[in-house]
Amino acid sequence: MIVAMKADATPEEIRAVIDKITEFNLKAVDLPGGERTAIGIASAIPPDLRTPLTELLESMPGVDRVSQVSRAYKLASREFHPVDTTVTVKGVTVGAKAVVVAAGPCAIESRDQLFNAAQAVRDYGGKILRGGAFKPRTSPYSFQGLGIEGLKLLKEAGEAFGLVTITEIMDPHDLDVVSSHADILQVGARNMQNYPLLTAIGDSGKPVVLKRGSSATIDEWLLAAEYILSRGNPNVILCERGVHPLDREHTRYTLDLSAVPVVKYLSHLPIIVDPSHASGNWRYVAAMSKAAIAAGADGLLIEIHPDPGKALCDGAQSLNLLSFATLMQELGVVANAVGRFLA
Amino acid sequence: MIVAMKADATPEEIRAVIDKITEFNLKAVDLPGGERTAIGIASAIPPDLRTPLTELLESMPGVDRVSQVSRAYKLASREFHPVDTTVTVKGVTVGAKAVVVAAGPCAIESRDQLFNAAQAVRDYGGKILRGGAFKPRTSPYSFQGLGIEGLKLLKEAGEAFGLVTITEIMDPHDLDVVSSHADILQVGARNMQNYPLLTAIGDSGKPVVLKRGSSATIDEWLLAAEYILSRGNPNVILCERGVHPLDREHTRYTLDLSAVPVVKYLSHLPIIVDPSHASGNWRYVAAMSKAAIAAGADGLLIEIHPDPGKALCDGAQSLNLLSFATLMQELGVVANAVGRFLA
Amino acid sequence: MIVAMKADATPEEIRAVIDKITEFNLKAVDLPGGERTAIGIASAIPPDLRTPLTELLESMPGVDRVSQVSRAYKLASREFHPVDTTVTVKGVTVGAKAVVVAAGPCAIESRDQLFNAAQAVRDYGGKILRGGAFKPRTSPYSFQGLGIEGLKLLKEAGEAFGLVTITEIMDPHDLDVVSSHADILQVGARNMQNYPLLTAIGDSGKPVVLKRGSSATIDEWLLAAEYILSRGNPNVILCERGVHPLDREHTRYTLDLSAVPVVKYLSHLPIIVDPSHASGNWRYVAAMSKAAIAAGADGLLIEIHPDPGKALCDGAQSLNLLSFATLMQELGVVANAVGRFLA
Amino acid sequence: MIVAMKADATPEEIRAVIDKITEFNLKAVDLPGGERTAIGIASAIPPDLRTPLTELLESMPGVDRVSQVSRAYKLASREFHPVDTTVTVKGVTVGAKAVVVAAGPCAIESRDQLFNAAQAVRDYGGKILRGGAFKPRTSPYSFQGLGIEGLKLLKEAGEAFGLVTITEIMDPHDLDVVSSHADILQVGARNMQNYPLLTAIGDSGKPVVLKRGSSATIDEWLLAAEYILSRGNPNVILCERGVHPLDREHTRYTLDLSAVPVVKYLSHLPIIVDPSHASGNWRYVAAMSKAAIAAGADGLLIEIHPDPGKALCDGAQSLNLLSFATLMQELGVVANAVGRFLA
Repeated sequence: MIVAMKADATPEEIRAVIDKITEFNLKAVDLPGGERTAIGIASAIPPDLRTPLTELLESMPGVDRVSQVSRAYKLASREFHPVDTTVTVKGVTVGAKAVVVAAGPCAIESRDQLFNAAQAVRDYGGKILRGGAFKPRTSPYSFQGLGIEGLKLLKEAGEAFGLVTITEIMDPHDLDVVSSHADILQVGARNMQNYPLLTAIGDSGKPVVLKRGSSATIDEWLLAAEYILSRGNPNVILCERGVHPLDREHTRYTLDLSAVPVVKYLSHLPIIVDPSHASGNWRYVAAMSKAAIAAGADGLLIEIHPDPGKALCDGAQSLNLLSFATLMQELGVVANAVGRFLA
Repeated sequence: MIVAMKADATPEEIRAVIDKITEFNLKAVDLPGGERTAIGIASAIPPDLRTPLTELLESMPGVDRVSQVSRAYKLASREFHPVDTTVTVKGVTVGAKAVVVAAGPCAIESRDQLFNAAQAVRDYGGKILRGGAFKPRTSPYSFQGLGIEGLKLLKEAGEAFGLVTITEIMDPHDLDVVSSHADILQVGARNMQNYPLLTAIGDSGKPVVLKRGSSATIDEWLLAAEYILSRGNPNVILCERGVHPLDREHTRYTLDLSAVPVVKYLSHLPIIVDPSHASGNWRYVAAMSKAAIAAGADGLLIEIHPDPGKALCDGAQSLNLLSFATLMQELGVVANAVGRFLA
Repeated sequence: MIVAMKADATPEEIRAVIDKITEFNLKAVDLPGGERTAIGIASAIPPDLRTPLTELLESMPGVDRVSQVSRAYKLASREFHPVDTTVTVKGVTVGAKAVVVAAGPCAIESRDQLFNAAQAVRDYGGKILRGGAFKPRTSPYSFQGLGIEGLKLLKEAGEAFGLVTITEIMDPHDLDVVSSHADILQVGARNMQNYPLLTAIGDSGKPVVLKRGSSATIDEWLLAAEYILSRGNPNVILCERGVHPLDREHTRYTLDLSAVPVVKYLSHLPIIVDPSHASGNWRYVAAMSKAAIAAGADGLLIEIHPDPGKALCDGAQSLNLLSFATLMQELGVVANAVGRFLA
Repeated sequence: MIVAMKADATPEEIRAVIDKITEFNLKAVDLPGGERTAIGIASAIPPDLRTPLTELLESMPGVDRVSQVSRAYKLASREFHPVDTTVTVKGVTVGAKAVVVAAGPCAIESRDQLFNAAQAVRDYGGKILRGGAFKPRTSPYSFQGLGIEGLKLLKEAGEAFGLVTITEIMDPHDLDVVSSHADILQVGARNMQNYPLLTAIGDSGKPVVLKRGSSATIDEWLLAAEYILSRGNPNVILCERGVHPLDREHTRYTLDLSAVPVVKYLSHLPIIVDPSHASGNWRYVAAMSKAAIAAGADGLLIEIHPDPGKALCDGAQSLNLLSFATLMQELGVVANAVGRFLA
């Protein structure tokens, strides 16, 4: 931790900061510069002291600002866990050399719709079936999902087509019912900082895809992962799905593909990309899927629908099954070009 | 709903869109322009058809984009409820001519801390005591609040000093315990789109302060209010607390004070402002509090602490009790200058 | 300057960083922490070495990141110039206790339009007449301003009504002609980082209003001011006019009023606020004008038009003359409430 | 153009809007909906009437908002120019099947530095040499470039190694000198809306790379291109270089790769990507370069330096020559994977 003093800080103010640091049995080092002094702390700071000490020092007279040397996350950090984490569910591994594609409808609407989609996922080379049963919708008047009925269909479809399944969970108290029907939990962008939910998932040990909040920094995202990891659940897969857009006119969000190499550098956790929600428009899904793999993503989460024009949810951003088949072929070629292959 | 066709749309594509609209028993009107045709729908569209119809039309060949004429929220809209809503709790009314100040510590830490703060709130003219028991913290290693112990202290302090109380709720399953200890619920920015929580609060009828998500548009915020209103709970108070910042260097968020007149224009709901979380720095809290009232806010939610340098949470942005006393005097003068007064 | 090493940095990597710093005749101090080492530089770093040294160190093995203790601006900083700067033009002072209102049309369209507006400015208590002659327009097909003809009208109107005048300059080569017709230059948000323009204005010594770029951080803005100040021109007035909006639906930009107290804390330069461009809607101009003064702004820059419905530019955000008259009365009351008065 | 009336608009207000539209000899069509009326304009609106008419209608009583059916740009739009534009300079074509790589140092620092970089560009398969002579720098104390001396070196290096050259221009009055020394002009992000500069370049007919402003929407960017195109210069290449970041901690900007397919859909102009400025960190440049090509970019603009640790500008984001050589090989493979090849 570094305390930058103001240029006009008095010697007494500098002294008071040094004394305060010393009170906590930490070692303070004076760093005089050309125009101002900084004070460095040359000791380990206990994790729970970090925030209050920062705020305490920031409120002292003569202090300009306090900056951190350590990062706030530990378990999510590659520094303390240099080897890549992989998450394996029923024989499908995310985070290894094979790129894994999850696909399916935004919302489960009917047995026919889901089974048609599931067949396409299996036939064209996807490994994971996605499908929403509890849908977070911006408007209370939009279709909210089939609920438990949807979960049952998902389980049935997964078994019928030999696919791993994933579905979103919004309420920690749904953990049992969702866990018993799906293989992987999904935490949506709106719930990235829903701490009761993260804690419950951490306790469950269940594999989870943690989507990035639409205005979350990468450090906030890794701290959300830390909530799950710190409860003893190592099976966390990150998912970039677009950040708050500069421009809502042509895409719903801005897919931040640089998050892929940045996360790979900072963390050992696998990272996949959802090109559908970010684009909000099927036209751009293929290009962004290829770009995601070229950037180093470990997988994709793609919305498909047997008849997008009749979808109850996100039809505009769903690929039809033919487009999906074509895309899967192209993705295999791109994966090869970056030294990987499609699972 | 207006469907803008592409400039090079063929007559057949235009015809197909008109036919599709007609299939739903809606009236389509052709609007030829200089370079492209638009097709207007001149009928009432059922609410649940709105989103799927938009997406269906957007996926048709020749369509450039579909835009909405109606707004998606109804109960939150001033158009259908022209008179200002007021929310009254134990004799304190938010949304009328009197400006109401809620204040207290970010987190309840101890009996002494809370009671000292509560006394200052009462003595200097605040009407509502705030204090967090369940704290949403970015890092799992930060202080998470006293939980139920904190709720009990809050209730006790409210009764001791004759103050209405408010505290944050994060989990819908805490509704009973939080409701029985506090007068007003607070939904934090991170939970603005936590739909199970909004729905439970809507069912409870309990007064609620709904903070704006840090990347929520005003329409998304009003739709979150609509979740509560549509379950029959009219006691919604909106709270602007800063949006995703352009610049994290000097403030934590950017307080969007224009949200105050915009919300007043669009909606009948009362709106208050939290200058503390947005600033993240006590130095800027007084200026932004005065500005909020001048902009037309119905109240403020201010963080104060008897000893900010020792706070376990958000000390840097908390006013000490003396600064709070001074500010309250100044706020009364500003309220008068805009034709209001301090409650 | 502080160099944070990675947690797994080797002793050799740490040594190499220390050696590199020492090569530049700077003193390096080792700051071991709990999980990683930081290296502080305890010497004055010459200004022109700052950026290359940062980048050099960031590219060394084992380095996590390099952070700055000093701020990059000097002349704009209150640390080196604690007393408030005031800018006086023809007897009108910006930055003192009196709040100064500049008003006028977005674009000068005709003699009648400008003179009617100018009369309202004078009659209702404004001190500065604004009017655009060279207009930066997003579309090449929009009205681009009257050019020199407009400048002549502005000069004439300023003299006729005893008002100080301000107008925008976009091209450094227009400096002579604009300077000879207007009292204050305005650098628009789009040109905040047009360095040839800033340099030319710095050399001219002419008073200038420097608008904040719509995505500029406060430090970038103060560095733009530094370009002007460092050429020997102290007459810089900053103007907040809204930053990139989260939400373009209801306002054009997000007026960042917290910039007012932040700039007052960091810098000695006067700061005014343009509520018209940020709002993009006359309905919100009065509320935001009052809020700006309550936040501590030294003045306002307001768009008015004798007949907004016929304006060639920004009619929707212009106040008519009657609304302006009403607003000026209200602003006087708010200024008094914060211990100031209308100039 | 569509005028949405408020839900409580009176028949008189609706009538007044229709009458006003009719005054301009345009045809107004009434579109009654469930809760409000919209009024469509079913005629061609002259371009210069578009903005003032919008603002006029928006200021009328009972009007909720006015939305556009047409797009403001014409010459940049694919609707009116369906075939891809290519820009050819000295035999190098941008916008065709071959992907073109431009590379070189951020700033030209010396003959040796530039010639070493140029040799690497040629040897490893680049076609265009970039190098800054006039540098836009955030701080006035940073290295500002060698100016004309740099231009001479660039010209010499281009000739020596048979490379097309590109360099940034900031001041319209430098057009002759820059044009006589470099083959392609570059307009930087800070100058995307520097209209005197765009106009001068439009008049010159010189090939130009137009970078996207860091907070520019895609429509604003295409309108900036329209400034150049509308002066008769068709040789415009767009360049995505990152938009205002959500998160400045790990990258300087957020590279918006979805801009590539969006621009390809909306416009016929070629688009290249600058992964260096967006990342601000050489570690992420390779991943983002590959992603850009996979997303469909027509080329790349990459910063390289013979000795990044000694660079006077942007060393941290520059690749050294060995990394560049490796990357070029990888890019060829990715280009092939999406049906293209490296020029």
